[in-house]
Amino acid sequence: MLHRLGSSDTCIVLAPGVVALIHFAIRLTAAVRRTKTPVVVGLDPRLELLPRQLQPRGKQDDWPAIAGAYRTFCREVIDVVAPLVPAVKPQAAFFEQLGPAGGEALADVIQYAISKHLLVILDGKRNDIGSTAVAYAHAYLGHDSLSGWGADALTVNPYLGDDALRPFVEIAQQQGAGLFVLVKTSNPGSGLFQDLVADGKSIYRHVADFVQQLAAETVADVGYGSVGAVVGATYPEQLAELRQAMPNTWFLVPGYGSQGAGARDVAEAFDQRGLGALVNSSRAIIFAFAREAYSTRFGDAQWQDAVEAATLEMIHQLHSETAAGKLNG
Amino acid sequence: MLHRLGSSDTCIVLAPGVVALIHFAIRLTAAVRRTKTPVVVGLDPRLELLPRQLQPRGKQDDWPAIAGAYRTFCREVIDVVAPLVPAVKPQAAFFEQLGPAGGEALADVIQYAISKHLLVILDGKRNDIGSTAVAYAHAYLGHDSLSGWGADALTVNPYLGDDALRPFVEIAQQQGAGLFVLVKTSNPGSGLFQDLVADGKSIYRHVADFVQQLAAETVADVGYGSVGAVVGATYPEQLAELRQAMPNTWFLVPGYGSQGAGARDVAEAFDQRGLGALVNSSRAIIFAFAREAYSTRFGDAQWQDAVEAATLEMIHQLHSETAAGKLNG
Repeated sequence: MLHRLGSSDTCIVLAPGVVALIHFAIRLTAAVRRTKTPVVVGLDPRLELLPRQLQPRGKQDDWPAIAGAYRTFCREVIDVVAPLVPAVKPQAAFFEQLGPAGGEALADVIQYAISKHLLVILDGKRNDIGSTAVAYAHAYLGHDSLSGWGADALTVNPYLGDDALRPFVEIAQQQGAGLFVLVKTSNPGSGLFQDLVADGKSIYRHVADFVQQLAAETVADVGYGSVGAVVGATYPEQLAELRQAMPNTWFLVPGYGSQGAGARDVAEAFDQRGLGALVNSSRAIIFAFAREAYSTRFGDAQWQDAVEAATLEMIHQLHSETAAGKLNG
Repeated sequence: MLHRLGSSDTCIVLAPGVVALIHFAIRLTAAVRRTKTPVVVGLDPRLELLPRQLQPRGKQDDWPAIAGAYRTFCREVIDVVAPLVPAVKPQAAFFEQLGPAGGEALADVIQYAISKHLLVILDGKRNDIGSTAVAYAHAYLGHDSLSGWGADALTVNPYLGDDALRPFVEIAQQQGAGLFVLVKTSNPGSGLFQDLVADGKSIYRHVADFVQQLAAETVADVGYGSVGAVVGATYPEQLAELRQAMPNTWFLVPGYGSQGAGARDVAEAFDQRGLGALVNSSRAIIFAFAREAYSTRFGDAQWQDAVEAATLEMIHQLHSETAAGKLNG
């Protein structure tokens, strides 16, 4: 079954709950081809930025009330973007900030997104050693009852080394789930350690070569493995270098929009089919109603319309200026 | 007040809730001097290792039941070790594995430990960029109502660079809380990236130098800053090198016991006063009842006695073979 799905060019809608045996790269390819876009919407709820009508009343530390508002907000964003994009990326930190109440909201948001046929990439940047890595991997990867959270993929941090990454890979493979390992991050200070040069190549390149090895070891016949890489849109040169060096590695590309990168900056992330990269935008989409260009077009009550317009605008930009346009053909 | 506490040699018991303005290194020094030991007990609950009488009945995915068992187990471990050690280190992964129910248990365990005058170092190995780092820092650092979890310190990962670490430092300083940044981790594969050599020094040493800078910037008059380092007991040579290179940095040393390191391996982690290092043991203490040497002395019903005996044994080993013995004088 895995083989037949992979070699097909038809679009497949995967029902929730029946994904366990299907390779992550094949599910991802199917979702990108179905929606004809590599846009991922980041779910980064923040109290002070919520639409006015969703702001909870009461104190700043009424965690259950804030968690309830995050849940409503994210569900309403999902309602808008589910027909448009292949995946959402909840940012764990903003939910964790609320303590256990945030955990309940995050679990609800993950389940809701999956019920709407979205892939869920949890941005947790987790890692630890040995059996602790196993616990994190089981926590987040896969839809079966042995995962406490049930996401489709998780971002992970490589600093601890190979024996910390391999348990994630093993469990991802078992679960039909994916990983995105931090390689070159989008922040201005990412170079402090990532750009140091050892044995003639940068640290991020050392990490990239290991991630590519893991991707090659887990490759499906669509040409990509279960292990992807996080590479910031804010570093287009490195993005081009890494695309060449990592032929089997799907990229998750943050930094588009609010962090300043545009469609031309991410053009090198794609392969010739328009596959191989997901481009994430968070604030510029979910809080589009607060951007000047949108606030004049949409009133407070139309904040969801602003989310839709911003998503469509980003889809259009990527279609016009990158190989993602080939997904239409 | 901060100054007077720092220059005093007397032992101070800090009441929960009144810590916000007291520097983390001073609170830590006070706790180590009060208990006369640098031993930290790691709270790593695992279903299959729980004492038989605490095993929940029912299915392997009955998360609330397992979370309840973890909560009871950790509380009972805390009851035993609170009079003996300065701090506990809950491992977030094992709680997160249970989904939201695990979050509730973790929050309860943190609060319970603090109510017993233990410092709580949450082992979450978090990090992210910019405002997301701020969210993680607020989530975990400090006892006030703006922290969803209320721990005293958090382990953090350095890969993302300086602008990802500084928000944690700023909020730690505001909260009287601490950080332990991964420098040289205890796992066999830690060398893959950490031991690469750039500009004549290893990557872990590059990280160490930056962490020492942060420690020096936040130093209290006890000589240590709010920012500490994780350095594995399994690498005694690096421990000695880093102790020299990081005079203001308190070390959190994992790898003792189950990972194979002993008292002599950690001897170089301490300063001449017996300060400057916390040595963690998790499994070898909390699951001591399952170790051969203890299971013959203690029956199933005496598992807490085994925890106490293993804690006292580790305290004694460190007193006998390291400068921690000076804490007695």
